[in-house]
Amino acid sequence: MTRKVDIFDSTLRDGAQAEGISFSVEDKLKIVRTLDDLGVAYIEAGNPGSNPKDIEFFERMRHVKLKNARLAAFGSTRRRDITVEEDSNVQSLLSAGTPVIVIFGKSWDFHVKEVIRTTLEENLNMIRETVAFFKKKKKEVIFDAEHFYDGYKANPDYALKALNAAVEGGADCIVLCDTNGGSFPSEIYEITRKVAESFKVKIGIHTHNDAGMAVANTIMAVEAGASHVQGTYLGFGERCGNANLSTIIPNLQLKKGITCIPQDRLAMLTHAARKISEISNMTMNERDPYVGNSAFAHKGGMHIDGVAKATKSFEHVDPDLVGNKRRFLMSEVAGRRTILDKMREICPSITKESREAEAVINRLKELEHNGYQFEGAESSFELIIRKQLGKYQPFFELESFKLITEQPSKPGPSASALIKVKVEGRSEITAAEGDGPVHALDRALRKALEVFYPELSSVHLTDFKVRVIDSESATAAKVRVLIESTDGESVWSTVGVSTDIIEASWTALVDSIEYKLIKDLEKKIRVYM
Amino acid sequence: MTRKVDIFDSTLRDGAQAEGISFSVEDKLKIVRTLDDLGVAYIEAGNPGSNPKDIEFFERMRHVKLKNARLAAFGSTRRRDITVEEDSNVQSLLSAGTPVIVIFGKSWDFHVKEVIRTTLEENLNMIRETVAFFKKKKKEVIFDAEHFYDGYKANPDYALKALNAAVEGGADCIVLCDTNGGSFPSEIYEITRKVAESFKVKIGIHTHNDAGMAVANTIMAVEAGASHVQGTYLGFGERCGNANLSTIIPNLQLKKGITCIPQDRLAMLTHAARKISEISNMTMNERDPYVGNSAFAHKGGMHIDGVAKATKSFEHVDPDLVGNKRRFLMSEVAGRRTILDKMREICPSITKESREAEAVINRLKELEHNGYQFEGAESSFELIIRKQLGKYQPFFELESFKLITEQPSKPGPSASALIKVKVEGRSEITAAEGDGPVHALDRALRKALEVFYPELSSVHLTDFKVRVIDSESATAAKVRVLIESTDGESVWSTVGVSTDIIEASWTALVDSIEYKLIKDLEKKIRVYM
Repeated sequence: MTRKVDIFDSTLRDGAQAEGISFSVEDKLKIVRTLDDLGVAYIEAGNPGSNPKDIEFFERMRHVKLKNARLAAFGSTRRRDITVEEDSNVQSLLSAGTPVIVIFGKSWDFHVKEVIRTTLEENLNMIRETVAFFKKKKKEVIFDAEHFYDGYKANPDYALKALNAAVEGGADCIVLCDTNGGSFPSEIYEITRKVAESFKVKIGIHTHNDAGMAVANTIMAVEAGASHVQGTYLGFGERCGNANLSTIIPNLQLKKGITCIPQDRLAMLTHAARKISEISNMTMNERDPYVGNSAFAHKGGMHIDGVAKATKSFEHVDPDLVGNKRRFLMSEVAGRRTILDKMREICPSITKESREAEAVINRLKELEHNGYQFEGAESSFELIIRKQLGKYQPFFELESFKLITEQPSKPGPSASALIKVKVEGRSEITAAEGDGPVHALDRALRKALEVFYPELSSVHLTDFKVRVIDSESATAAKVRVLIESTDGESVWSTVGVSTDIIEASWTALVDSIEYKLIKDLEKKIRVYM
Repeated sequence: MTRKVDIFDSTLRDGAQAEGISFSVEDKLKIVRTLDDLGVAYIEAGNPGSNPKDIEFFERMRHVKLKNARLAAFGSTRRRDITVEEDSNVQSLLSAGTPVIVIFGKSWDFHVKEVIRTTLEENLNMIRETVAFFKKKKKEVIFDAEHFYDGYKANPDYALKALNAAVEGGADCIVLCDTNGGSFPSEIYEITRKVAESFKVKIGIHTHNDAGMAVANTIMAVEAGASHVQGTYLGFGERCGNANLSTIIPNLQLKKGITCIPQDRLAMLTHAARKISEISNMTMNERDPYVGNSAFAHKGGMHIDGVAKATKSFEHVDPDLVGNKRRFLMSEVAGRRTILDKMREICPSITKESREAEAVINRLKELEHNGYQFEGAESSFELIIRKQLGKYQPFFELESFKLITEQPSKPGPSASALIKVKVEGRSEITAAEGDGPVHALDRALRKALEVFYPELSSVHLTDFKVRVIDSESATAAKVRVLIESTDGESVWSTVGVSTDIIEASWTALVDSIEYKLIKDLEKKIRVYM
């Protein structure tokens, strides 16, 4: 029988403690659906005692049916010197109405004495009685032993007593937490193994990344006998974050043969990462293992050659397995091969030694020097090649534009643009309004050009990113604008750089429109020929 | 005697393979100086064979004297079936003129057969002869056994033969590489231990982060006997990156007592991280252990309470040790305590239950809901509190502004701003030009206000960041603008949010100026009283 671990996602609870995260109730519902689709076993979705917004969320969740996951609410043991029934946090935890309750309690004697300031004995009572209370209410109860590893290192006897109190209370699972994230893999392995040997109940692991080893510590705990894994999907969490489940799941499932989620869901890992980072409003770390945009991006010339011969030469797993894709990056160190491959798509007869190849590489270097990057703007890169190869024609000429932003503004769009373009000798002048100058300019330009190229009416922008390249000179710093456009069928991306955000945006907009018009023209020529 | 490991930084070589990185020669020289100041043992700075820019760099380095580090150039073994003397890459490696040479060679039989396509025997000759060539030239030679762990798992006998060929050639150190980054900590430990037991020469470790465990794998190798650690300072590198030295150094030195850099340099770790990320033009991962801005940032109310009682309750090390600092984040989940502390700085009599505290928290929630974040904009946060407490006065009134951007633009500034403000009944109208509309607006506003507040002449912006919050609706998406200002004495940061980048920038600019004027006014009042 294959081994299995339960995946327990805490993006909505521990993840919400991350700097920069602030979930709305709608955000939380969307993330619950994403994680449930992915097939995790548990979703810990909030702490009704400490965050009032969570009460509304749990209320809404009463009407949501999950396909795979069990919903968990998180809260503390009862406070010292009162009964469970008297504790309002315990009662609001119960009122969340979830099938699973996570109770956290202290297992480090230092925390008992210095932080919650009670006796070692009373802390054990608090754990035992709180767990027992929820068991009596027919809940599945998971006990998080906060600071367990630090506690074990300081006073192993007391740390084990805390676990034992939870087991006496009837806990279904005891979770060993490296709350401060400072433990080392070999320590985690040794301590977890001792616990796994001493207790019959299911053992869980919960690590933080303060020493950069949360994933490895989780893996070591699983090797030592843990079968319940807590983390957050993208590693979001207090300080340096929690163990990253989007790394742990494929590590265990693809490399150790340990089932974490249904096998057919593995290819959703990358998509789920994009979605959760988007909902969370957090820029993804593109270097994230398995799911990051760079995870299978090859740049060095020798690596690209190797992968072309056999993918396993520089890839530890096949990107398809996790729904990601291999990329060869365009850059001066990419090696001529990558650039040549791209050039041959446009002009198959180009050779390695040709003057044109040289010219493209030189132009590329010059633009990179000025702050351009083509790694996320393949269409602008293609236009550069076309210009060097003579496979390009300008589709319009800008005569002038004028952008005006005014304050106080009337209700509605805040900026207006006036533009005059010329196509084959004929001029067109028009104007448009928008939310901000770039929006107005985009609208005005397409409005003017649609007179000549009606196919542009299907084009719209889907993404717009601004990056300040050199932030030392503040508002006069250089900015790089990346835009992504679509006509409903394909998606393309272009780039512009300038000290003026308007000029950078203009460059990227023009590239986007020219790219569309070139592609359409070539399609027509192919049909005709 | 305390144990010591050699830190070998490859930011300039393996790091340059990262997506998004493109170093100029000047960038490289700056990074060399930063790493040398930090006291690393080796700086691997380029591959003269594959990157012509590196030749210029090594030329410039002949005139630079390093205080701590030894400079290394990186290159391949000779190609198959030619002599070392005939190989142009080997010759350009020699001409780099560095005291240390790193030679990489194949140790995985699959790579020998399928990628470089030669015989197993010839590959061993290539390793042995290339190492011997550089030893004869009196170089310190480090041998990187590429794909060593994958090679060992596939054919341990051959992998060890590759190491042995390097030792026969006279290598000073043999480095075991997990090139594809897919190995697990327990494997790394076992295999490294076997190598350390079989060879007398110094053993190094070089890991990649494709399974999210590069740091842990490095630590495990050091526990197994490695005493030379390769990585890149911020983990930059091909695909998911290399082992992050800014995590490994404090892990080993603070927690294992193993010396990596001079003890008095540890407090420079955070500063070096900022500097290298700035020079590399890469946004730092703020969740990076030890050196990230979030590494010691506490957000959850219970954590903030705990740290207030005893810092070790939620911090695995003291942030001062690595030159970082503790932060308590402003946010709706921060708990009233943090917000109250901030309010009491302005008005010491505020109580927990006061109407004003309630009003500030509600306003905070509303603004966060609209896309504001105050974690990087403490001055805007302070202004909100002041407005709620009545400790605020408007210093000017905007009557109107008009921004104009035109194309084609004349040489020089591309945008102009016309502004009219009113201060105590008196109007002032003026205009200014700038690189882009925000720059022009900033100049015009300060020009108009300096008539009334001459102290504003010392203010200028030092950072300007734009973040698209919701990128689905492209150019009409909401943007958050963060600006940092200084008057030469202090630094403050403010924020604005809008669908219009001009409006968002305006909000942040106004906050910046009002904050400065309030602080100056209060200073005057204190002197007077």
